[in-house]
Amino acid sequence: MANKLRFIPLGGLSEIGRNMTLFEYGKNILIVDVGVMFPEADMLGIDLVIPNFEYLRDKKDWVRGIVITHGHEDHTGALPYLLEEINAPIYSTRLVLALVERKLREYFGKRYRASLNEINGGDVIKVGPFTVHPVPLSHSIPDSMALAIDTPVGRIIHSGDFKIDFTPISGDAPDLTGIASLAAEGVLALFSDSTGAERAGFTPSEKTIEPAFDKIMREAPGRVIVASFASLLSRLQLMIDISQRYNRKVAIAGRSMSQNFESARKLGYLKVPKGAHVRLETANKLPATQVTMMVTGSQGQPEAALARMAAGTHRDITLRKNDTVVISSNPIPGNEEEVARMINQLVDRVHEVVYPPLAHVHVSGHASQEEMKLLISLVRPRFFVPVHGERRHLHFHARLAESMGIAKDHIFEVQNGDILEIGPAGCKVVDKTPGGYVFVDGTGVGDIGPKVLREREALAKGGFVTVFIPVHKHSRQLAGSPRIVTRGVVYSEQAEEVLKGAEDAVQTALKRSKHTKSALENNAKDALSRYFYKTTRRQPLVVPVVVEMEH
Amino acid sequence: MANKLRFIPLGGLSEIGRNMTLFEYGKNILIVDVGVMFPEADMLGIDLVIPNFEYLRDKKDWVRGIVITHGHEDHTGALPYLLEEINAPIYSTRLVLALVERKLREYFGKRYRASLNEINGGDVIKVGPFTVHPVPLSHSIPDSMALAIDTPVGRIIHSGDFKIDFTPISGDAPDLTGIASLAAEGVLALFSDSTGAERAGFTPSEKTIEPAFDKIMREAPGRVIVASFASLLSRLQLMIDISQRYNRKVAIAGRSMSQNFESARKLGYLKVPKGAHVRLETANKLPATQVTMMVTGSQGQPEAALARMAAGTHRDITLRKNDTVVISSNPIPGNEEEVARMINQLVDRVHEVVYPPLAHVHVSGHASQEEMKLLISLVRPRFFVPVHGERRHLHFHARLAESMGIAKDHIFEVQNGDILEIGPAGCKVVDKTPGGYVFVDGTGVGDIGPKVLREREALAKGGFVTVFIPVHKHSRQLAGSPRIVTRGVVYSEQAEEVLKGAEDAVQTALKRSKHTKSALENNAKDALSRYFYKTTRRQPLVVPVVVEMEH
Repeated sequence: MANKLRFIPLGGLSEIGRNMTLFEYGKNILIVDVGVMFPEADMLGIDLVIPNFEYLRDKKDWVRGIVITHGHEDHTGALPYLLEEINAPIYSTRLVLALVERKLREYFGKRYRASLNEINGGDVIKVGPFTVHPVPLSHSIPDSMALAIDTPVGRIIHSGDFKIDFTPISGDAPDLTGIASLAAEGVLALFSDSTGAERAGFTPSEKTIEPAFDKIMREAPGRVIVASFASLLSRLQLMIDISQRYNRKVAIAGRSMSQNFESARKLGYLKVPKGAHVRLETANKLPATQVTMMVTGSQGQPEAALARMAAGTHRDITLRKNDTVVISSNPIPGNEEEVARMINQLVDRVHEVVYPPLAHVHVSGHASQEEMKLLISLVRPRFFVPVHGERRHLHFHARLAESMGIAKDHIFEVQNGDILEIGPAGCKVVDKTPGGYVFVDGTGVGDIGPKVLREREALAKGGFVTVFIPVHKHSRQLAGSPRIVTRGVVYSEQAEEVLKGAEDAVQTALKRSKHTKSALENNAKDALSRYFYKTTRRQPLVVPVVVEMEH
Repeated sequence: MANKLRFIPLGGLSEIGRNMTLFEYGKNILIVDVGVMFPEADMLGIDLVIPNFEYLRDKKDWVRGIVITHGHEDHTGALPYLLEEINAPIYSTRLVLALVERKLREYFGKRYRASLNEINGGDVIKVGPFTVHPVPLSHSIPDSMALAIDTPVGRIIHSGDFKIDFTPISGDAPDLTGIASLAAEGVLALFSDSTGAERAGFTPSEKTIEPAFDKIMREAPGRVIVASFASLLSRLQLMIDISQRYNRKVAIAGRSMSQNFESARKLGYLKVPKGAHVRLETANKLPATQVTMMVTGSQGQPEAALARMAAGTHRDITLRKNDTVVISSNPIPGNEEEVARMINQLVDRVHEVVYPPLAHVHVSGHASQEEMKLLISLVRPRFFVPVHGERRHLHFHARLAESMGIAKDHIFEVQNGDILEIGPAGCKVVDKTPGGYVFVDGTGVGDIGPKVLREREALAKGGFVTVFIPVHKHSRQLAGSPRIVTRGVVYSEQAEEVLKGAEDAVQTALKRSKHTKSALENNAKDALSRYFYKTTRRQPLVVPVVVEMEH
């Protein structure tokens, strides 16, 4: 299948996160984004989820370049893991490169080496047989862009993450003219962000939340503490601007937010008037009505600043009765319980807690249906591929495209790992490569699979019971009493009685057992499972171990 | 403190669920509601959470009666556990008694015995020194009521769960006149449902969702499958009514919904025209456009009907490409991920999936802020106690009452277990009784505490490592090689190598150890913890076991 264009999504389809796409032509691969996904509730003990790089392993020298559309973790976070395996130049905007460089230096330490190449809207970049035209679009971090990519079979457009914000607080307004003029020459395929496809209408501009914050800063009887995403630089800019108006200084708590603040200020992405920003220690000494604090932890993450403040365990910040706390985000699905728990703690500690929908203090960074339609209408692609989103988002985005007159057989709802061949005459899924989850747990990448997760799930539900069965090496007769250990099954005060019963149950079973290792283990396991279910209706994970003694 | 009125909440305050309240005067206790709570995400392996009955244990003969305000599990579900310990007459409406009787017969089997006493709006019931006036209010199940209770110190009103629905689909409209006339004589204290206190405005009537369903039933190209709460009888009635209009027969899937349907129909709470309801097997043979199915599982519960259908594992119902599926509920906080996962599966299997906010197919059963104000305005209580809701709901409800002119020191935001003494001159928390969670896991009630949960949490995150160390009984010298077992830590293919390293680490540590049992255990534990953290950055639960051999 050489000399045909192939689209190979390795992440971001039927899920939120770990966005990664390959475009392949002949023996040339262009990679767009290399993101991580944060684990879902049932991925027990997992730190991160990354794309499966299997497809690239025998094609490492095909990779001509990696283009990053913007600086969020779900588009950059798996770069270190990929760069462990391949080496290729990275192209992106100035802000993204600064964030990526920090990430790579942290991960690789002395091993750091990377080819970072700045690109900007209006540039034309040759990457192997591909010509990339970056086009600024708005999102919740500055320097986000869509990509028009000229390939030997025609021009394609990838939206990146986007919304159409005509009045962004920081970063450029979307370059719709750029999109339109690139599209005028005809676009073979559009790959477009589906995250907001359930939402009717038009996502409000970042500017629309200003009145709510103006009122809060004006009326608050003490400090205003605003929690938001660490990467949401426009929110940070807005807080700096409004704080100036009411003579408040802005202090920042939370490592990731402080780092982003410093990088963005240094590069000029944040406009910080002299004296507008103070250190936390300074803020703690100012009169309360002169202080705004920007903090991490808007998702209720127990280790982040706001959750610690709510629990009264933050090292540097103690909440006060006249503080106003604003949670300037919506809970990401799966975080609702933690956010609610944090709010429940906050209401007792401060003057007021404000969060959506109590006030208009957050807007999404993703396009709603009318913006999606606007992009489709400007691009008028021959083929349409919804990307970035859970299955239902891709589905609704495809229906939107259909409603605008794109024929159903020109719309491709593909899966991670599908290899979609694209030509002027049509598209077809021609092959499949592994597209599933690769889990990162500690230093292990990919060594945790479904089996280990199922064990953790069983352990979470019912704890475990192990029984050590000492036997004589040759006769396999018992060489002592079986010894039972449990954790997570019963409360220790009752444990003694329960364990005594369990030991009796095992002894009885072993007496009747054949004296092979597997028979002893199976009988012990059955006896213990039955015993615990009968006495407690619980189902701990039972692990029998026959130990052969030398004597 | 005899001859004073005491309000003792044992559940439902700073949480959603396990509502239970005691009113005590002298040696007389009236119990209002005895509910369960469903476990939160971090209550691993727990089946149910019930109130702590400790306070009642030495006052069993003080209990004059139990009044149930309506038939939901969070108001009735812990009755079996309470009736294991005390015996008292139960008072409620006809529907509630039918549901309660079924529950008690299921739980107690042959041991069943209960004094069930029907009461109705307008009745006046003497229970010890208390006189109870039930007043119908609307909620999401018929026969819900508020209670006006005359006590020796004055009249109090408890709202139960309520909304003000002037056009309910089934059940009575709220008896605001009844509330007003009972309130006319003066009310000492109002205890009112806070669940919806974050929501501005007025909760829409059940009637308002009719147009959306009318359109769906009229236009659907095949079957209409509606998932909702099993107890939401008015939703069931609405589906029966609209289905009739479009010549659809209604079938029901899911045990709890079928049981509720049968009970409610028998008692006349559901109006089911002849032939309007068919069995599942019959529905499966009808033309698709003549079928409506009401199913359980609107919260994405993996074992309920809709999740099984979405996964393709339901025994009797196979989804078809022209089905329309309606999820007629909002996810309860904590269930968002499971609901989203189910929708992601459904979009690939059926014609259309409809859920809020895509269409107006659900309304809450709880009052919003304007309805809460309406009740306060009708009752004009001397004291106000927000009940039923998480901490923030109680907080916002208290602020609402304040905004209506109730003095701050006449509002009592109390906690489960607080003993609030109520008199015309004032209220005061005079004492505290255990109000915390009691966990039900299998047949165990209260035997799982924080320690077991912490163990389960550690196991969920990192699995376990047990090491069995055989030693000679007297010398405590090693009597064989230590034997290590792990689950949930590493994938089995890598396990061999990791385990070999772990064994070496333990051997080395034990050689250097003092030969007491505790030294051996501590050294083995430290060595293994260090080894696993160093090689994998993981922290399994490490359990060392020294076993003394007779030989």
